[in-house]
Amino acid sequence: MKLAVFDDYRLAVVEGEHLYDVTDALPETLQALPRQRMNNLIAQWDALRPAVEACRRDATPIPVAQVSLLPPSPHPSHLFAAPANYRKHVGELGARSVSKGRTAREQGFFLKAPGSLVGAGQRIVLPRGSTRRFDHESELAVIIGRTARDVPRAQAMEYVFGYACLIDATLRIEPGVAEEERSMRKSFATFTPLGPYLVTADEVADPQALGNRLWVNGELKQDANTRDMIVDIAELIELVSSVLTLSPGDVIATGTPEGVGPIAPGDRVTIAIDSVGEMSLDVVEAEQRAPRAY
Amino acid sequence: MKLAVFDDYRLAVVEGEHLYDVTDALPETLQALPRQRMNNLIAQWDALRPAVEACRRDATPIPVAQVSLLPPSPHPSHLFAAPANYRKHVGELGARSVSKGRTAREQGFFLKAPGSLVGAGQRIVLPRGSTRRFDHESELAVIIGRTARDVPRAQAMEYVFGYACLIDATLRIEPGVAEEERSMRKSFATFTPLGPYLVTADEVADPQALGNRLWVNGELKQDANTRDMIVDIAELIELVSSVLTLSPGDVIATGTPEGVGPIAPGDRVTIAIDSVGEMSLDVVEAEQRAPRAY
Repeated sequence: MKLAVFDDYRLAVVEGEHLYDVTDALPETLQALPRQRMNNLIAQWDALRPAVEACRRDATPIPVAQVSLLPPSPHPSHLFAAPANYRKHVGELGARSVSKGRTAREQGFFLKAPGSLVGAGQRIVLPRGSTRRFDHESELAVIIGRTARDVPRAQAMEYVFGYACLIDATLRIEPGVAEEERSMRKSFATFTPLGPYLVTADEVADPQALGNRLWVNGELKQDANTRDMIVDIAELIELVSSVLTLSPGDVIATGTPEGVGPIAPGDRVTIAIDSVGEMSLDVVEAEQRAPRAY
Repeated sequence: MKLAVFDDYRLAVVEGEHLYDVTDALPETLQALPRQRMNNLIAQWDALRPAVEACRRDATPIPVAQVSLLPPSPHPSHLFAAPANYRKHVGELGARSVSKGRTAREQGFFLKAPGSLVGAGQRIVLPRGSTRRFDHESELAVIIGRTARDVPRAQAMEYVFGYACLIDATLRIEPGVAEEERSMRKSFATFTPLGPYLVTADEVADPQALGNRLWVNGELKQDANTRDMIVDIAELIELVSSVLTLSPGDVIATGTPEGVGPIAPGDRVTIAIDSVGEMSLDVVEAEQRAPRAY
């Protein structure tokens, strides 16, 4: 099943070019805080799925093109990310940028701010007037389905609710000039496009055998396969859950392959992951300069 | 006013050694998701304050000692933190550990996981069997009161809802041996004690003139004053809000002064900040070894 969040945090089932509003599958108390609706749906998925299917049957189809798609997990408790996690990407940015070639196995995870999430219907907004370099990274996102703590990798895939495409936009450091914290450089508002939908795990036969591609203005920049991940999804869940508790709706960005490159206002970035989906976002400059410039 | 969260996420006003349950000051729909109650109370504080005061008048006093205190903002969207932010602390840990003496002005902020928060009634739990060093850091926490984006420092203090004590526990890196991401090393569950209460901003005459002290087993380890912050609270809010949007209940850990040192199972850590409060937590070892060890 493909699930989407749209407009004012309404929930939908997506089929082809149409979506079907299933918000009312949630009891009223779980609808009350709109940004948490998807977390609540995921947390009670087994109980609520029949209601979702009933709503789907009764719903009027709405063309996807008529709505604004938000991130399919708009308000996760945590947005985890794996650094340098594809075999060919390690080393590409120079020894310093990938921390001497160490991978997620050595570096662990980092955090991005949930406030950096946007959906397929939104845009990537760069700080106004910046002369810094901003990059695209193409990643498979894992959406967690159940509370997870100290999960061994052999059981880890049972905790996956679904998958989505994720662009990890990044303010690059300039060694010796500007070396901001990684978790900040990747947390600018709009720097984590997630979407277009959430595809439930049962629809993805092998998440470690998916083409992962990204284009800028139609030019293919990243072209890899999730089989080249160094630390696979199961081990990432083991890693994160050994540190703290994951909650339904939490997102893990699984790292990016080679081909990372710059994006600038006016660009259009497209990401496509096999069995998961495809989305394109425009890159623009912020309308106003922030009080503190980057 | 002092506000607390206790037991199963009930809300209270604290006066002296007693607390007064004011959960019912929230409309039912805003009570439905217990972990979000404080965010909802803060977001609608001006409208709800009269109801809070009415509940306080009608409530039966409960001895603080009889409840379990949770973090006074238990489920922030973000937990931001300032690296190396006191004049005397910079350089203490060696050039590498404080990133060549650069401060929050150059490094920006980093993120801790909200899942690392615990309250004054809980414990700091270190990974079982670890031979690594874990440190205490004593910090003033700022709790954000209003949605904040691109706030210039001159207006920034209007966005502060209140203050609390915060211990930033940390897995230390060992250069050349283990150099995990900072946002992971500080995000182990229980590594961010916050409390004991949230003191509203009107009760803190000058947040940049507060003694900030931490003891381990009764021995004074950190003894500083918030006037020695390099990047002050207003500038931190400007910095973070220039990157993304802050939400009511978001927490900013404002950095730690000199005196950072190790903690080990069996220790008792006490933090006290003038006008804000004092709390003590026991340090213990996890009952089970995690699938991945640190």
